[in-house]
Amino acid sequence: MRLFLTVVSVEEAIATVRRIAPPPGVASVPLANSLCRVLANEVTADIDIPGFPRSTVDGYAVTAADTTGASESQPAMLNFRGTISMGVQPSFGISHDECAYLPTGGILPGGSDAVVMVEHAERLDTLVLIQRPVAPGENVISKGEDFPKGAPVLVKGHLLRSQDMGVLAAIGIATVQVFSLPRIGIISTGNELVPVDAIPDLGQVRDVNASMIGGFIADHGAVPQYYGILPDVPHQVRETLVRASGECDAVILSGGSSKDLRDICAKVVGEIGEVLVHGIALQPGKPTIIGRVGRVPVIGLPGHPASAFIVLRVLVKPLLEAMTGRSFPDRVVRATLTQNIPSSRGREDYVRVQLEGGNVTPLFGKSGLVNTLVRSDGMVRVPAASEGFEQGEEVEVILW
Amino acid sequence: MRLFLTVVSVEEAIATVRRIAPPPGVASVPLANSLCRVLANEVTADIDIPGFPRSTVDGYAVTAADTTGASESQPAMLNFRGTISMGVQPSFGISHDECAYLPTGGILPGGSDAVVMVEHAERLDTLVLIQRPVAPGENVISKGEDFPKGAPVLVKGHLLRSQDMGVLAAIGIATVQVFSLPRIGIISTGNELVPVDAIPDLGQVRDVNASMIGGFIADHGAVPQYYGILPDVPHQVRETLVRASGECDAVILSGGSSKDLRDICAKVVGEIGEVLVHGIALQPGKPTIIGRVGRVPVIGLPGHPASAFIVLRVLVKPLLEAMTGRSFPDRVVRATLTQNIPSSRGREDYVRVQLEGGNVTPLFGKSGLVNTLVRSDGMVRVPAASEGFEQGEEVEVILW
Repeated sequence: MRLFLTVVSVEEAIATVRRIAPPPGVASVPLANSLCRVLANEVTADIDIPGFPRSTVDGYAVTAADTTGASESQPAMLNFRGTISMGVQPSFGISHDECAYLPTGGILPGGSDAVVMVEHAERLDTLVLIQRPVAPGENVISKGEDFPKGAPVLVKGHLLRSQDMGVLAAIGIATVQVFSLPRIGIISTGNELVPVDAIPDLGQVRDVNASMIGGFIADHGAVPQYYGILPDVPHQVRETLVRASGECDAVILSGGSSKDLRDICAKVVGEIGEVLVHGIALQPGKPTIIGRVGRVPVIGLPGHPASAFIVLRVLVKPLLEAMTGRSFPDRVVRATLTQNIPSSRGREDYVRVQLEGGNVTPLFGKSGLVNTLVRSDGMVRVPAASEGFEQGEEVEVILW
Repeated sequence: MRLFLTVVSVEEAIATVRRIAPPPGVASVPLANSLCRVLANEVTADIDIPGFPRSTVDGYAVTAADTTGASESQPAMLNFRGTISMGVQPSFGISHDECAYLPTGGILPGGSDAVVMVEHAERLDTLVLIQRPVAPGENVISKGEDFPKGAPVLVKGHLLRSQDMGVLAAIGIATVQVFSLPRIGIISTGNELVPVDAIPDLGQVRDVNASMIGGFIADHGAVPQYYGILPDVPHQVRETLVRASGECDAVILSGGSSKDLRDICAKVVGEIGEVLVHGIALQPGKPTIIGRVGRVPVIGLPGHPASAFIVLRVLVKPLLEAMTGRSFPDRVVRATLTQNIPSSRGREDYVRVQLEGGNVTPLFGKSGLVNTLVRSDGMVRVPAASEGFEQGEEVEVILW
């Protein structure tokens, strides 16, 4: 049993997970289910949008030249030709000195090139008095002005928001080609673990990590698949890892944080695949494993929930970004330290902190305490080259 | 047909939707499905967590007093009593001058009160040399230290994140009581509207708003229910609104922006329920309707997608916040205006803008252009008391 691990830097660990992350596949989803999905290809307008010149106001379609110089005291007088209904092609065109009423969104009749708002006109039986001039094209969306046929509308890799769903509707995309959601297996290991609905016997604890990891995966654009709790028995871990790596796009192992167990996980990954990293210059989270079985990345998290959560943020987030095509930028605020944060050079420290007003206080609680996950508001990163931060310094807080 | 609406202020409109919003109900969901749900009641620890004193390191359980003054040159010599396995109750206790090996997470044997890290000890057959002193409680989580039995852990109204799901697992909550997801009906009206998968005839346009509204609802913690496209025929709108208000917690009407249609919607809402607001001092979005049928809020959005999107942000967001128990704070950045934004006093203007570096440029495009929804990065609010902003001013941009 080795007492010490050969550690790599956090940068190297992140580069490793990015390198082994399988790129996302492609799936078809109905437009109504496309929120927060990522476009798998560029989308273009199938037709000119709109397919006809359209009024943007309720008013009178006119030939703009007929309104030149019109004012309230000297209105232009036009002959009223009729009313155009919504969604219906006009049955007539207009000539000079003629006009037609149409609603917002209505089709301009032939011969017209602008619309006078109803507020700036007065109808007197068969005559309409136009009280303001309009320029050609005024209050009109011309054919293809919104999206001309064939024009690129949204690029590959775009994350779909509600307004994008409206735009996809406009260009006729009822079924959207998006990146598929990666499926991530979760295996909890540890002789001491019992399910959430059990009352632990002496020495046992409930499996905290599977629920936390599953939530993290769902929150980062992927689908968790649970493989339950395994005892620290190599052949059982091996069998389940073989199955999970056959069914999933990546697998996260977690549980029991004893050195023995870490050896079991690394040993099993090494037997059926390869261990790329075993140990990261990261506190907490040093005993993390990065490996793969075939082309399926396998991450071994430390068992302490608070440590596991830091590794999810630091290492699993970039893995899921690469696998989903999404990015999950950290929310960062600046605040003033109320206490020193000492650190060792050569290792990145992530210290859970509480924020209050503009002040930030480190929670130096034992990393085995689950309660620091809910008592903390975020974390402060101490870079590997730093020996820590001093009370009164302004630091960046990465919010949960 | 009235040409002008009686408008209320944006503040009054928001207060109205908050007042009529039905409070969320309660639902039970499995812990694994509880991400982004809101706790419907306070949760407490069912038992002491942990239920036993637990080591936070791999090392030797000792009586702290036995290690006083220990150093590498003058180690304390303790008798080795055995190894405690993970998840197993120790079969022995220790006395003074004795110790036992245990893994991280292991139960401390009776008689011990601290753990010496394995790195600070050396085992020589039946003797263990302790090279550093430990204080009582060091490297130990005591019984109930994480969450004492009965202690409040998360409050009612708390939005569940992945780390909270871990904490709920720790305290044995396999089924979570959360606020139910409100169901919001979506009715598109307009003679000119065709479904997304249709090729529009001359004068027709695809229904953009239903997809955009559905995405917005899903993005704000609620469930969209689609009632399709209706022509501007009062009895059809009435029948569908009656059905939707029986099946949903709120209904959003949208479509066709002609004055005639607005009248149809307001008329129908008034016939089977009550119209509370018809017209808001808001640009774009003035012709918005707020009403209710029974206890079910009904919002009538303008048909222009860009206008409808502003009203979703300004008015439907606070409605959904009240109905879900969640809050959706705006992301705001400050930037310098590259152009004047003129505005009318007495009305709130929301101007779609593009951000580039620290500069913000208004998109004064026609509000009927759907493309401004994807070309813009956010909006600038011009308060009712302001006549606008000048080029070079720093303004707040509310990001999409």
